[in-house]
Amino acid sequence: MPNPTAAMLVIGDEILSGRTRDSNMHHLARELTKHGIDLREVRFVADDRASIVGSLNALRAAHDTVFTSGGIGPTHDDITADSVAAAFGVGIDVRDDARALLQAHYDRQGTEFNEARKRMARIPDTATLIENPVSIAPGFTIGNVHVMAGVPNVFEAMVASVLPTLTGGAPLLSQSLRIERGEGEIAGPLAELAGDFPELSIGSYPYQRNGAFGANIVIRGTDGAQIDAAMTRLAGLFPA
Amino acid sequence: MPNPTAAMLVIGDEILSGRTRDSNMHHLARELTKHGIDLREVRFVADDRASIVGSLNALRAAHDTVFTSGGIGPTHDDITADSVAAAFGVGIDVRDDARALLQAHYDRQGTEFNEARKRMARIPDTATLIENPVSIAPGFTIGNVHVMAGVPNVFEAMVASVLPTLTGGAPLLSQSLRIERGEGEIAGPLAELAGDFPELSIGSYPYQRNGAFGANIVIRGTDGAQIDAAMTRLAGLFPA
Repeated sequence: MPNPTAAMLVIGDEILSGRTRDSNMHHLARELTKHGIDLREVRFVADDRASIVGSLNALRAAHDTVFTSGGIGPTHDDITADSVAAAFGVGIDVRDDARALLQAHYDRQGTEFNEARKRMARIPDTATLIENPVSIAPGFTIGNVHVMAGVPNVFEAMVASVLPTLTGGAPLLSQSLRIERGEGEIAGPLAELAGDFPELSIGSYPYQRNGAFGANIVIRGTDGAQIDAAMTRLAGLFPA
Repeated sequence: MPNPTAAMLVIGDEILSGRTRDSNMHHLARELTKHGIDLREVRFVADDRASIVGSLNALRAAHDTVFTSGGIGPTHDDITADSVAAAFGVGIDVRDDARALLQAHYDRQGTEFNEARKRMARIPDTATLIENPVSIAPGFTIGNVHVMAGVPNVFEAMVASVLPTLTGGAPLLSQSLRIERGEGEIAGPLAELAGDFPELSIGSYPYQRNGAFGANIVIRGTDGAQIDAAMTRLAGLFPA
């Protein structure tokens, strides 16, 4: 049975303008691979309602699970929660469960729970909350979509909350071999090997270092014995 | 006049599996911003023909320019050129101009120009070549789509070849201010400021460091005097 599939939607002008470099995609990709879920597509869009709604509806229809990152804070450019509600065609308002969490948090801190902070308690109807152990303001799950913060340590904590609730497939195993020859020499035998092991995914990732060409060959699959067999053949084809 | 828009399509299982971390998106984002072109969307897809064709056709219809990264090497998993030809509905074959470049290169090296390497001379009909000063195998431009290698130093060299040929808009200017208060305190006044300067984009990027919350406020636009005025107001609202 093929593994479940996932997609990710990263929301924010700051990444598309080159001001900041995203790290959440790489984190999620690694975690999903360990959990046996195939991340098949990632989209980065600006803080723009139509883009968020359109992308989210395309991704949630095409994949088992969707994760979003960014745009759920208290400022005027945080429009993710409202856009997700629009995508699902449901209402959104400040909700009691989220408000209670935040109220208790600000009471403990002796900080005013002002209008801006109440924005973070706006949760689409029918959604359930995702715990945020770092800074309290929750994410939420609606349908097959998990809406999470963009700040990396909060995002990572929310992924850790959500992942155990998802059914994974067989973890993807991999082995790699570094071959210090140009891809042009490797390509023919590699294509034959890929043909002989149709259930494995065999990728070639070229590099250039100090003027010399080489490639890392990565063999992936869920059957460790098959990977061993393919790797043994590969190593025999290109002795170091 | 609004700036031209661009999108990027990154092709490759190795990024979606979390094995490698992409750097080309961040590089392109910075270069386009300097050049006055707004990067509006980025998609990462697997080495899968239907995904590449579908994403490319959506992106090239929605944006002035599209850049792709990855999948144009000689191995069996390099399917970008054939997928791009399919997206445009044109033929593809080994082409004389690309073959001549590669033939001369391998002759100089005394290396065999074998079948696998000839794959890198497969160019869709009507495309023009993009120079590759690093490792010769060319990228290509077809319609509003620029197809480039995934290896970072080759990708960057190709971007440097293509960018001067594109009409840019006014370069996007920005100033930022770090405010050592939680976003919840900043949000109200910031929304007012954003309302008073509708031509500027005002973003708030929260951080948490040593348990303290703060935000970097970035004001972007093409009119330097307006940005100065907004920044002066902002600094007055939140004195250090």
